[in-house]
Amino acid sequence: MSDRPASDPPARLARWEQRTEVPLFVAGLLFLTGYAVRVLTPHDDEPWNDLALILVWSTWLLFLVDYGTRLRLSGLGARFVRVHWLDTLVLLLPLLRPLRMVKVYTAVQQRRDRPRLSLYARVMSYASLTAALLGFAASLAVYHLEHTAPDASIRTFGDAVWWACATLTTVGYGDVAPVTFWGRTVATGLMAGGLALLGAVTGSFSSWLIQVFTREDEKRPPGRG
Amino acid sequence: MSDRPASDPPARLARWEQRTEVPLFVAGLLFLTGYAVRVLTPHDDEPWNDLALILVWSTWLLFLVDYGTRLRLSGLGARFVRVHWLDTLVLLLPLLRPLRMVKVYTAVQQRRDRPRLSLYARVMSYASLTAALLGFAASLAVYHLEHTAPDASIRTFGDAVWWACATLTTVGYGDVAPVTFWGRTVATGLMAGGLALLGAVTGSFSSWLIQVFTREDEKRPPGRG
Amino acid sequence: MSDRPASDPPARLARWEQRTEVPLFVAGLLFLTGYAVRVLTPHDDEPWNDLALILVWSTWLLFLVDYGTRLRLSGLGARFVRVHWLDTLVLLLPLLRPLRMVKVYTAVQQRRDRPRLSLYARVMSYASLTAALLGFAASLAVYHLEHTAPDASIRTFGDAVWWACATLTTVGYGDVAPVTFWGRTVATGLMAGGLALLGAVTGSFSSWLIQVFTREDEKRPPGRG
Amino acid sequence: MSDRPASDPPARLARWEQRTEVPLFVAGLLFLTGYAVRVLTPHDDEPWNDLALILVWSTWLLFLVDYGTRLRLSGLGARFVRVHWLDTLVLLLPLLRPLRMVKVYTAVQQRRDRPRLSLYARVMSYASLTAALLGFAASLAVYHLEHTAPDASIRTFGDAVWWACATLTTVGYGDVAPVTFWGRTVATGLMAGGLALLGAVTGSFSSWLIQVFTREDEKRPPGRG
Repeated sequence: MSDRPASDPPARLARWEQRTEVPLFVAGLLFLTGYAVRVLTPHDDEPWNDLALILVWSTWLLFLVDYGTRLRLSGLGARFVRVHWLDTLVLLLPLLRPLRMVKVYTAVQQRRDRPRLSLYARVMSYASLTAALLGFAASLAVYHLEHTAPDASIRTFGDAVWWACATLTTVGYGDVAPVTFWGRTVATGLMAGGLALLGAVTGSFSSWLIQVFTREDEKRPPGRG
Repeated sequence: MSDRPASDPPARLARWEQRTEVPLFVAGLLFLTGYAVRVLTPHDDEPWNDLALILVWSTWLLFLVDYGTRLRLSGLGARFVRVHWLDTLVLLLPLLRPLRMVKVYTAVQQRRDRPRLSLYARVMSYASLTAALLGFAASLAVYHLEHTAPDASIRTFGDAVWWACATLTTVGYGDVAPVTFWGRTVATGLMAGGLALLGAVTGSFSSWLIQVFTREDEKRPPGRG
Repeated sequence: MSDRPASDPPARLARWEQRTEVPLFVAGLLFLTGYAVRVLTPHDDEPWNDLALILVWSTWLLFLVDYGTRLRLSGLGARFVRVHWLDTLVLLLPLLRPLRMVKVYTAVQQRRDRPRLSLYARVMSYASLTAALLGFAASLAVYHLEHTAPDASIRTFGDAVWWACATLTTVGYGDVAPVTFWGRTVATGLMAGGLALLGAVTGSFSSWLIQVFTREDEKRPPGRG
Repeated sequence: MSDRPASDPPARLARWEQRTEVPLFVAGLLFLTGYAVRVLTPHDDEPWNDLALILVWSTWLLFLVDYGTRLRLSGLGARFVRVHWLDTLVLLLPLLRPLRMVKVYTAVQQRRDRPRLSLYARVMSYASLTAALLGFAASLAVYHLEHTAPDASIRTFGDAVWWACATLTTVGYGDVAPVTFWGRTVATGLMAGGLALLGAVTGSFSSWLIQVFTREDEKRPPGRG
């Protein structure tokens, strides 16, 4: 790949991204935790709730600083916003942050010394982890938006998690479903993102299983088959 | 491909198709806009509504002229109707026009100078764009056909869009669903078309993800892995 | 393939199968028509109904004669029942006959002279045709079994077709669903068979689309890309 | 594969696993039978029920002994629990035992002399068998957990099987669905496991069908095509 330096992002940007990816992933988890505390303990007078609010805003400030730095380092100016549209979207909707996890995952893998997973196993674990985090974020958001609606069927956080599982796997029982405009918007996003991720899990599992059976054939002594 | 001239359509037809594809795509969008205005503002006395009606009929006339020209240029005579059955179907049901977008999309890509997307990214963006347009057209048609039915569950355009999303992703909650014969016919068409398109999105995403992970492996210095 | 004569069925059986496949396919369509008339016109005193009953039994006798002849020609004796278990199942449940259509389809293709479809197009058309026939057969059977049940939601044949479409595409709204034991058994069969067939349609469409986009790349003059 | 002895488990462990896999599979079926009798005949005073209880506990003891032996033979110590996390999970939740069937299946295949199935047919039969056993185990567990809940929609074992079929195929009608926390937890597990397995069935069937059509092309004399 070293013979195509023009299409690569500048080296300083690459170094910045490599250094910040794990801290930003931790910040993403903290953001999700803070948001979860805000949503699940809705009594505004508790100290935990204020702490969670501070956590949400400070991690979001971190994301903003990172976005600004990368915009400056890239040398693209305002074009950065359009070229890196996924990053811009993730900055505005930090609950989508799990979608940017692919780099973190490989970074973590690189630092460990133990024998690495096979290609399909890595795709599967990445896609299912991202789908699980997206599903958790969507459960929180849908519970937040729905549980006070007059004719809501999603009334507890358990209902929201159950709904997210049935949606991500495209089972869609319909016993609980969002009824408000914003709840349905979040649901549409979860369907679109989750469907592709789960398709990747299924496809990789299928390829992996075929690989396992092919290897079993090769291991077998030819005289016995 | 230049060594198989017999199986290619005549050169004049090809030139006509290349020239008309972008105008026809714009006409398709105008048709959809006109139909949307007709369906969503159902008061017949407004000036916008008359304008929309004129738009719908004039764009459809354009489609008819294009179909007639291609029939004549092809030199196939009446066989054109059967050989190009998808075009005939799209002429009769202009809401299916998004299905013919594949040529437009590549034509647009050819005219731009910026580095082109990878194969999987193009399949994904083509299939999801087509699915979105088909879903929008089906939402309009189902809303049109259903919202006055006595026991309808699809009562607003928002319900119709929500139903189309749940149908295209095969989630199918069933909280809203068509109840009339024609509404269900449109729904069956959306299921058939949308399922294949979404399958293409999922399959391409899966292949793309496996490609990304394979590249990460290649980039890594072998001494560290 | 000519160097593995031992694994091929004997030549006489192959000739019998080649000669009978189109007549048997026609007989299968007649069986389905007869069953449809029986189910959809439930008044036993009409002449059409008696005719349909005769049609159903005489076509089934044809299937029995074909099965017996093939059993004899194969030289397998009673092992034929187990080795050709799909044929045995199709004999006992003639509504599953669409599953044996793969040979008919290629036979029809062989006799025609026009340029043949591409591989993916043939898989798609075979799988969707089989799925459509299976869905029609399942609609008839489920309507037959369900419409007199006390708490049935499938009350008309239109409901049954709508239910079959939603089931085959795995959308599964659940607005209509079988409630009796035998209705649910038929439904389970439709899910199992239809899911695999629709998966083949989706997979082939995805591969075909990737092929189309790859060809577009090759056609393009390299200087403009 | 013989040039990578370091990554293989020690030879004694491999021999133990090869010898115990069929007995353990039989024990797994006995466990499932015992659990089924316990759940489906809930009157505690019957002799069959006591027998089933003994069967469940004695087979589980066998699983424990096998796990302990493998832990000792592997020479990994406490790391075995984490490295073989799937085995640990299956020990704690023996209803998941069908997931470990891949080895049994190939072992059975190895011992028989008849011509072996093609790769795709084996993946399909393995994945559908595992899915069927998982679905049966989940039906039992969900029936057990749900049928006494005050607002349950799964009231009979037939409902539970019907629900499991609709869930595994991702149809998800929603006419019956779990309502308790533990029932929904089991359902989530079934969705996750079953979705991947059914994806493997669909993918293999699609690949197999494309293979069949490719072979038909090759068989055909080129002069007639």
